[in-house]
Order: sequence, then structure tokens, then C-alpha cells
Amino acid sequence: MSQLGTEIDATLQRAAQLAAEYLASHQDRSIPVARPLPPSELLAVMNLSLREQGRPFAELTSDMEEVLTHSVRTGHPRFFNQLFGGWDPASILGEWIAALINTSMYTYEAAPVATLMEVEIIRRMNELVGFEKGEGVFAPGGSSSNLMATLAARQRKFPHAKKEGHRAEDKPALFLSTEAHYSVLRAASIMGLGLNAAVEVPCDAEGRMIPEALELAIEESLAAGQTPFFVNATAGTTVAGAFDPISQLADITDKHGLWLHVDASLGGTVLFSNRHRQLMAGVERADSVTWNPHKLMGVPLACSATLMREPGVLRATNAMDADYLFHGKSDTCYDLGDLSLQCGRRVDALKLWFSWQAHGDSGFAQRVDHLFEMAAHFRENLVARDGFELVREPQSISVCFRYIPERLRSLTGESRRDAVSTCTTRVRAQMTEQGRFLLNYATVDGSPAYRMVLVNARTTEEDMTALLDEIERLSEDI
Amino acid sequence: MSQLGTEIDATLQRAAQLAAEYLASHQDRSIPVARPLPPSELLAVMNLSLREQGRPFAELTSDMEEVLTHSVRTGHPRFFNQLFGGWDPASILGEWIAALINTSMYTYEAAPVATLMEVEIIRRMNELVGFEKGEGVFAPGGSSSNLMATLAARQRKFPHAKKEGHRAEDKPALFLSTEAHYSVLRAASIMGLGLNAAVEVPCDAEGRMIPEALELAIEESLAAGQTPFFVNATAGTTVAGAFDPISQLADITDKHGLWLHVDASLGGTVLFSNRHRQLMAGVERADSVTWNPHKLMGVPLACSATLMREPGVLRATNAMDADYLFHGKSDTCYDLGDLSLQCGRRVDALKLWFSWQAHGDSGFAQRVDHLFEMAAHFRENLVARDGFELVREPQSISVCFRYIPERLRSLTGESRRDAVSTCTTRVRAQMTEQGRFLLNYATVDGSPAYRMVLVNARTTEEDMTALLDEIERLSEDI
Repeated sequence: MSQLGTEIDATLQRAAQLAAEYLASHQDRSIPVARPLPPSELLAVMNLSLREQGRPFAELTSDMEEVLTHSVRTGHPRFFNQLFGGWDPASILGEWIAALINTSMYTYEAAPVATLMEVEIIRRMNELVGFEKGEGVFAPGGSSSNLMATLAARQRKFPHAKKEGHRAEDKPALFLSTEAHYSVLRAASIMGLGLNAAVEVPCDAEGRMIPEALELAIEESLAAGQTPFFVNATAGTTVAGAFDPISQLADITDKHGLWLHVDASLGGTVLFSNRHRQLMAGVERADSVTWNPHKLMGVPLACSATLMREPGVLRATNAMDADYLFHGKSDTCYDLGDLSLQCGRRVDALKLWFSWQAHGDSGFAQRVDHLFEMAAHFRENLVARDGFELVREPQSISVCFRYIPERLRSLTGESRRDAVSTCTTRVRAQMTEQGRFLLNYATVDGSPAYRMVLVNARTTEEDMTALLDEIERLSEDI
Repeated sequence: MSQLGTEIDATLQRAAQLAAEYLASHQDRSIPVARPLPPSELLAVMNLSLREQGRPFAELTSDMEEVLTHSVRTGHPRFFNQLFGGWDPASILGEWIAALINTSMYTYEAAPVATLMEVEIIRRMNELVGFEKGEGVFAPGGSSSNLMATLAARQRKFPHAKKEGHRAEDKPALFLSTEAHYSVLRAASIMGLGLNAAVEVPCDAEGRMIPEALELAIEESLAAGQTPFFVNATAGTTVAGAFDPISQLADITDKHGLWLHVDASLGGTVLFSNRHRQLMAGVERADSVTWNPHKLMGVPLACSATLMREPGVLRATNAMDADYLFHGKSDTCYDLGDLSLQCGRRVDALKLWFSWQAHGDSGFAQRVDHLFEMAAHFRENLVARDGFELVREPQSISVCFRYIPERLRSLTGESRRDAVSTCTTRVRAQMTEQGRFLLNYATVDGSPAYRMVLVNARTTEEDMTALLDEIERLSEDI
């Protein structure tokens, strides 16, 4: 082997060893979730400057160790900050191989294995959704998938827009709940409809879109001379993990001939579970679905499926027929390039395929059931303790709550709300600084609430109890 | 160590070993670039079905070997099919670590190291471009970056569009050359302007946009009551690798107050080279630049920088101010989420940072100079041989050509063109099937031409000569 060959071999071996140690160390609760440093301090510790001259390849091992040391441990069982977390060696292995085969998903010719894996995964996801003839493609994230769905809906209602742009009389209107993800609003902005074209429909106390309110909003929009074309339902809202009532919304979109999109970025994975898939009852009536395996299926970012009930929709919407790539051969149903918004597109299917091999449908079903049980347990634990208040009755793996320390419990009204708000954001800031837990908060009903999310199957009851203890303890000292 | 821990350790070690062997094997020309199989046959060889039950993690090693066997070897020195290729162990290492730390780029809190790396890379790229106060962010590919640039241009000219959508009187028009990448057209479609809003400006014989033709097109557009707002210049066109004359185009966009975008997806990397950076003279006058390190800088897909001359533009265009993510802290200039079109965004900076550490500016400069020399050498070799014809005078690393076998040289006009076209596509198909080379073709001036691209610094003169020999040989037998 050449000298470079020997160095590569040794460095990759060392990387594999560090990786195994790093993953194993996630079981060790004495290691903090994060050791947060402000940018200036982190820059003083790690020299991140780019250089005129290169360094020997083998030296990069020490950089690798530094990166692992100073990154947030999203695989830590006490990382509750985002809708992803945990660690799955099978999908990490898949991602490593994707880096090795380094190709682009536009043609079967350039990516035969990855294309067939993606096609098989999309087939199975469509089956789970109930799209019998469905099609689909991976996108760089849930925002992109939601944009693609909105574009497909426009293509159906305003087919002239692709070539001519919008006509003055189009006046498109789209509908989403007040708790839907902001990417749907952003889609309206990107697409030249404007944020004002998006109508936000109120939710019930659990954070689910109210069907009657949607009906009313559509009627008002029609009365105002707009053309409703798209309804975004959410299966697993960002903050509360709520599931909009898809069947009831589908009755309304059917009646008015509107495109029904289900943003199941978070929720899609419940389709594996016999116990919980009824949360998405009616999803087979949707026109499109976004589903992020990088959330509850545990694969590394990004992995987002855009699923369509009717085949041909993605090509009609997105195809540009670039001659230099697609040569009109017989296998073009395996040339995925014209289905996506990208040209070069990285391989996101491989990591998911590896993960699916390791876990099987049954593994994902068990994971969903387990996470739901943990969330239910957390909820029970929480309501049984003094001073903790649920702010939404949880429907899935997210539990939004507040803690009112004893000294504030006699307060009422605005002064109580303000004091609890201050306490929440300060406790959260302090907890983040100490790094034993990472827990996010969000504004719910006008003031901040903690958002606990159960996304890591290795989180235990002890971890959850320790979190509540920590909040209690920190709140006393604020 | 637990049993799973031991298995993970062993499997990752085996993966590292396979990876090192795989990379080293790219030097072996006796291994084909690809062993192409139609989907049905590949599915018969590899069982890609998803299963109800999972399999032991250690078994995935054999899947890994199969994936490597049946994937196209884009790192092979005879892979000439796309504008990426070769292999860079430093960036593969970076990608492996990105999979381990699995985080999202929206907040500094969740991605401290990766955020600072991205900020440093963007700073340096802007410096190379000449954007003194520039800002930027990574996107999932060149198409996304081009869309972001077009959106930013719209935000400047039609600031009402973000909220209100387009007004009937807007009539936006954008300009690109006939050889620009299709993603700019797609951006017009996505943004609700329509493909018809895009005006395609003719090119000279080398494939560069003709400034006078742009000027004329703008005047015609104005006369037709449209509002020109955006000009896309290309630095390194997809097919011919041509560089539009940026300075001359900037004179025109300055005069008319239009946004000048430079799609330097391919070409940006020439900025490292003192010898070749004059191809992009005037780029510092642009408003935005797309630059894909996954092309000539050799990092795995995808890595695409979106650079803006004026700070604040990305936030003004894209910000949605999601409260649950961004908590209005002091470090928000390091919260990159509002700059991008995504919410969750994978870490693309790490692999590039590692590569930059290994090579330094000087390594990238040498690579550019070497690839240009190879392309010049290939051109000379080609024109010196009977029957080979350049179809564009090459300006960078792409060489478009045809081969006219002896028996067709007496033909003229249409019959010659048709016969050569048939020969070209058949030879290319046969070459692909045999798998010793992978070379793309594209329609140039109405008929197919081979497109040779020098993207792998390990390609040798022997490889290039062997390619020409192969084309000659196969053409005789067609």
C-alpha cells in the first residue's frame, strides 16, 4: 500500500474506534449533554481558521476528537431539545457508505443501488400511508417536502402558473392551523402567493385544527373572491405533537375540491404501530404526505419523504427535461431527477435502508409504542407532582408543561403569568448552561412552556424524573 | 462493553477497513467504473426488500460490500460522467463525523462547532469572491442556491411580494443565457413567475452570454412593459464549462439596476488559482454567487454555498421568526436558521472544513491548475487525431467534442450529422454497458456531443488517451 493508502487506512480505523467509543459513551449520564461555550470562547479553544497550506491527513484525527468533544450530544438520553435524537449505528453505517459511493440521485445510471433503495422505501411508505398507486421522492427536509406538496397542489388548480405565472384572477388561498409548521407559510412566500394568502385556522385545546373553523375559513375565503386550493393538516405538530383530525378535514377538502396535504414530518412513523396509527386515520384520503424518517425513525439528518397519492404529479410539477442528464431511455421511471426540486441530490435513502434492515417494521413499531408509553409515563409523573401543570393534553411524544415554584403559587392573573414566564426562561437558560439536560421551550397560549419530547428510546424513567427534579431545584434558586 | 457495543465496534472497524480498501482500489484500472445492470437484474442480485423483522447489526457488513460492488465508482479515474468525481479521504472523514454528531444547523445552541465552521468557510469564500461585508449559508445544492438568489432579488425589487404576493403590474422578467442551468428556469416556475418570465439570451461560439444580446433583451422586455429584476450569469456552464463575461454583464445590470447573480456552481473553485481566476473577473460586482464545493473542491455531495454581497439580505428574504427555535438571544448572528429555506438542515460544512484543513488554499489552487492543464492536454490530444472535432473551444475543465469515424467522413450536411449523432449515442451506450469508462453526452448546437470533464486530479494522460482510443475503436464497429 502507498504511504497515503496506509495513512488513510490508519486514520479511518482510528475514526471507527472513536465512533464506537463515542456512541457507547452516550450511555454515561455523567458526561454532559453539552458543554456550551459562547462563540468567542469556542473559537479560542478550537482553532477553526482555514489555512493557506494543508496539513497531513493523519492530523485530522485530533480535529475529529475536538469536534466530538465540543458538539452537542444529540444521542444523549437527556437530550430533549429537538424532534430528533438518539443514535442508530445501522443508519450511521449507511451514511458512512453514502459518503464513500458519493453520487447523485438524478439518474439510475449514476446511482443504481441508491435509486432502487429509494424506490423500495417510497413504495413501502406509500403502502403504510395507504396510497395504492402513490409515488414519491426524498427531499432535503420537511420544509422542502411541504413546498413540493404546495407546488403540486398549485399545479393541479392553476396549471397555467408553471409557464405563465399567476394571473390576477387566481387569488390563491391556502389553509393551515395556527400550530402548523412555519414552512407552509414560507412556501406561500417562496411561491409568490405571499404570506397573506395563507389563512391560519384555530385549534382546539389540544392543538388540533378545528374542522368547523376550517369550513368557515374556506367559505369566507370564497366569499372574498379567493380561490382556495390547499389545506395543510399536521400529524404531529412541532410544539405539542398534536394530530389534526385528518378524516374530518378530508370531508371538507373533498367537498370543496381542495388538495389535502398531511405534514406528518413528526407523526408519519406512528403508521408502523397498530396501537397508534389511528391518530392518522384518513391519511389515505390525502393528496400528499411529508414524513421525516430523521425524526422518530432515528436516522441522521436529513431524510424526508415527499409522498403523492396520484402518480405523475411530481413529474408534471417539477420536470424541466434537462437533456444533458436524462437521455430518454427505457429506464426513466428509475431516473428520479425530474421528480425533485434539486438537480444534484445527495443519497438520503441508504442510511434509512440500512436502519430498516436492522430494525424491520416491527422494530419501528416497538419504538413508537415505547416512546408513547414513556411520554404517557412522563405526563403522569408530572401531573402527580406539586406545581407542575400540563399546558396541552399530550397526544403523542411531546409534553408541554410549566412549573410554578411554591413561592409563586399564591399569585394570580398577569402577575403569576409573568413571574412563571420569567422563571421558565431563566431555568431553561441555566439548565442549558449547566449542560446536564437540554430541553427546549416554546410559546404556548402566549407564554413560554417547557416542551419535553420523547425521541430517544434509550431515555429511561430515571432520566425523566431527574429532569423534573432539576426543574424543581433550579426554580427554587431563581 | 455490552454485546451491542462490541458488535458496533467490530462492524464499524470492518466498515473502516472496507472503506480504505475501496478507496485504494480506485487506482486499479482493471476494475470497471460501473457494472451496469438494469433494475430487474440488479434487484435479482441484491435483495433490497424491506422486512417485517430486523436483522443482526453485524450482518449489515455484507450489505455494505454489496452496495460498494454495485454502485458506480465515481472516484474512479475514468469516471467522466458528472461535474463531480474523485475521492478525498479528508472530506469523507468529515462526513463520517457529521453522521455521528447528527445535528441541525438552525441554531448555534444545537450545532456550535458546525455553525462556526460554516461561518468561517462562508467568510473565506466571500473573501475569495471579493464580497467585503458578504454573508451566506449552505444549501442542499446548486439549484437551491440559485433559487435563494432569485428570491433575494425579488425581495429587493418587489418587497411587497413576501406578504402580498405579486401584483398584476409587477410583470417580473429574469435573464439567463441559453446555456445556463435549468434550475434558474425552475426557480421562475417555483416562484410563481412562470417559465415565460425567463428570457434566454444567446451565447457566442464558446457558449458565453453575449452582453449586447442581454442589453437588447432587457430593452425589449422594458418595451413590453415588463420589470426586469434579475440576471443570471454562469461561471462554468453545465455542458461546455464556459464563463460568461461577468464584468461586461455587471456594466449592464448596474445601468439598469438589476440584481446580478453568478451561478459559479462549477466555476467558483477557480478563484483559488492565480492563473485562472481572471475567468471570473468582476464577480465582486455581483449581488450573489452560487458555489458548489462538491464539484471542483471534491467533497461529497451536497455542499453548495449561497453567497450574498450585502449582509441582511438572506434574513430579510427568508426569516419566519419561529419562536420555538430562536429565542432572541445575543448570539443570534450565529443562529443560521433564518438565513436558509430549510428548518432542519444537515451539516454540510464539516466535510468541507476537514478537506480545507487537509489541502489548504494552495492545495485547491494546485488542483484547479492541474485540472485545467489536463483539459488543455486532452484538447490538444484530441484535435491532433483524425476524425475528432471540438464543438466548443474549451474554457475550463469541460471539452465537448464529436468523433467522425472514417467511413462517415465523406458524408456532408444532414446525412453526416444524423450518422454522427447515431454513432455518438450508440458508442456512448456501448461504452456505458462495458463499464470501462463513464462519459456523458449532451445536445450541443442541435446534436449530441461527448462531454469530457476533468474533475478527478488522479486521472492521467493515459486515461485520456485510452478514452479516445476506445471511442475510435467502438465507432468502427457500430
